[in-house]
Amino acid sequence: MTTSIGITRAHTNIALIKYWGKENKELFIPMNSSLSLTLEAFYTDTKVELSDTLTEDEFYLNGAKQDEAAIAKITRFLDLFRTETGDTRRARVESLNFVPTAAGLASSASAFAALAGAMNEATGLNMPAQKLSTYARRGSGSATRSLFGGFVEWNKGDSNENSMAIPVDDANFDIGMIIIVVSAAEKKISSRAGMELTVSTSPFYEGWVTSAATDLADIKEAIKDRDIHRIGSIAEFNGMKMHATMLASNPPFCYFEPESIVAQQTIRTIREERGIPAYFTMDAGPNVKVICKASDIPAILEELGKVFPSEKLIPTLPGEGIRTLTEDEWNASRAAFEGK
Amino acid sequence: MTTSIGITRAHTNIALIKYWGKENKELFIPMNSSLSLTLEAFYTDTKVELSDTLTEDEFYLNGAKQDEAAIAKITRFLDLFRTETGDTRRARVESLNFVPTAAGLASSASAFAALAGAMNEATGLNMPAQKLSTYARRGSGSATRSLFGGFVEWNKGDSNENSMAIPVDDANFDIGMIIIVVSAAEKKISSRAGMELTVSTSPFYEGWVTSAATDLADIKEAIKDRDIHRIGSIAEFNGMKMHATMLASNPPFCYFEPESIVAQQTIRTIREERGIPAYFTMDAGPNVKVICKASDIPAILEELGKVFPSEKLIPTLPGEGIRTLTEDEWNASRAAFEGK
Repeated sequence: MTTSIGITRAHTNIALIKYWGKENKELFIPMNSSLSLTLEAFYTDTKVELSDTLTEDEFYLNGAKQDEAAIAKITRFLDLFRTETGDTRRARVESLNFVPTAAGLASSASAFAALAGAMNEATGLNMPAQKLSTYARRGSGSATRSLFGGFVEWNKGDSNENSMAIPVDDANFDIGMIIIVVSAAEKKISSRAGMELTVSTSPFYEGWVTSAATDLADIKEAIKDRDIHRIGSIAEFNGMKMHATMLASNPPFCYFEPESIVAQQTIRTIREERGIPAYFTMDAGPNVKVICKASDIPAILEELGKVFPSEKLIPTLPGEGIRTLTEDEWNASRAAFEGK
Repeated sequence: MTTSIGITRAHTNIALIKYWGKENKELFIPMNSSLSLTLEAFYTDTKVELSDTLTEDEFYLNGAKQDEAAIAKITRFLDLFRTETGDTRRARVESLNFVPTAAGLASSASAFAALAGAMNEATGLNMPAQKLSTYARRGSGSATRSLFGGFVEWNKGDSNENSMAIPVDDANFDIGMIIIVVSAAEKKISSRAGMELTVSTSPFYEGWVTSAATDLADIKEAIKDRDIHRIGSIAEFNGMKMHATMLASNPPFCYFEPESIVAQQTIRTIREERGIPAYFTMDAGPNVKVICKASDIPAILEELGKVFPSEKLIPTLPGEGIRTLTEDEWNASRAAFEGK
């Protein structure tokens, strides 16, 4: 019996310049380049064990054995590596998702980045992170950006090989985020369905692609200048534009819930009346994410706490890129998960 | 002493294809043609008395003498007629606004249509309604469409003379509207400021102008076919697109209040789960307007009544165009107003 093991931690990320729409659905090549901030507070630890005694892939998420549909998705993803190596051993995959259920955040970014990292190690391919990001991308578009820490660009590229992550800045300055949890419920329209409806029916989609390129160039300048006002206002402009493409789809659709509007209005008030640089963005769901100075987090939490219960407010600092875990770290992680 | 009197009633209208953005700010020539339904439930009665004993214009709204700023706006408007006739007599203007305060609807459409009608009569110009609509337009863009009843197009045109109303259909079939009053409060961003910010900063504005022209052609076909599903879905698509242009402005802005989202979601549920053709539109404010069959109004009110208090729900049928009132009718109207 031969077994090969890889264990990796990857963090989630929140896009400040959004990914919305695929140019190539099979390869997950996007219509526009995007840029995100990797987050410290949310991550996935994944262990891959390749073994010639296994007859099929197995997948355990948070200790629970997953069903065939979930395993089939994992198998398709691992096959990308098997095609590369010729090593067809089946895998036992264990994942621990440190993305609180209450956060209502998609965990597919950290999930596929961690799985790609663990498989990279188990297979001995040991590809550099940038190349590995092209594999993560095939699992979930946003996973591309979770390979690196801080601010990360996903360069859209035009082929499987060059649609990849580029580290932009380690975000080692006074910046943070607060997640305002509006609803942790499953969204009614998946990102995939939403993107497809938008690309095929929104008369504003072309304007989105063009202006997202401008926003990306602008925010990279703002990051270079560490200018929180510009970073925030470009992100808010870009995020609301993405939602505008949906509102202009036929039929129109909208991820805003009533509480999303309350959260947006509260952030605007904090910005305008208290003069604190606080800006918001939203993804394909009702939660609102606040971009702010890390040092302003306590003051913003205090204001938000007047409107939202504290368990709905999750602050976080920038996070790091993927990293290998030792067996000891893995065991500690599992103990931490079970102790939750 | 010579006095000349004109008394006119004009109804408000709700655009199904929205007017959003001016090509010529001074002349109120819009960037795109629009189309509305005139409403029975909301109207303005206005009496103009031209007299050579008056030394300046006077303006009484709902019995209250108005301030200089309001009078200045009226004077500028009446001057358009005085330039035409050479008759420079000053006017005493009395208006009664039968737009319930609680409806939170802009009354400028019925107000300027009624004022144009009354002045048209008092001056003896007796222009036909279509020509008169080019005068109403100079008071408030949406007033252009209130000259006629039923479905009315405002053809954008390219000059003061041809940017005018065109009656499309008398709406004498099974169609109605319900206003869901979310807030009767003054809006934070005026339509004018909102339009200007959108035209100058939204990367989606060009797409708006192009697609509004398509929507207009489509809805005219749907009206011809008396197809409530198509009328409603085109109106919903167009209205949300207008709001999308704002959400894509820099900085983004949004007239939605939390209750607007509740209203939209409730209408969608009524449509999808009860199979009742009910569609929504919104203007530059938080209220939601439901487009439906008149015969479905009771069933829709019943469903909406589970979510909104009944005084927030105002049903209406299509209304007629401007018409002259007799002195007796005016006195009856004033008595009705005072009795409210």
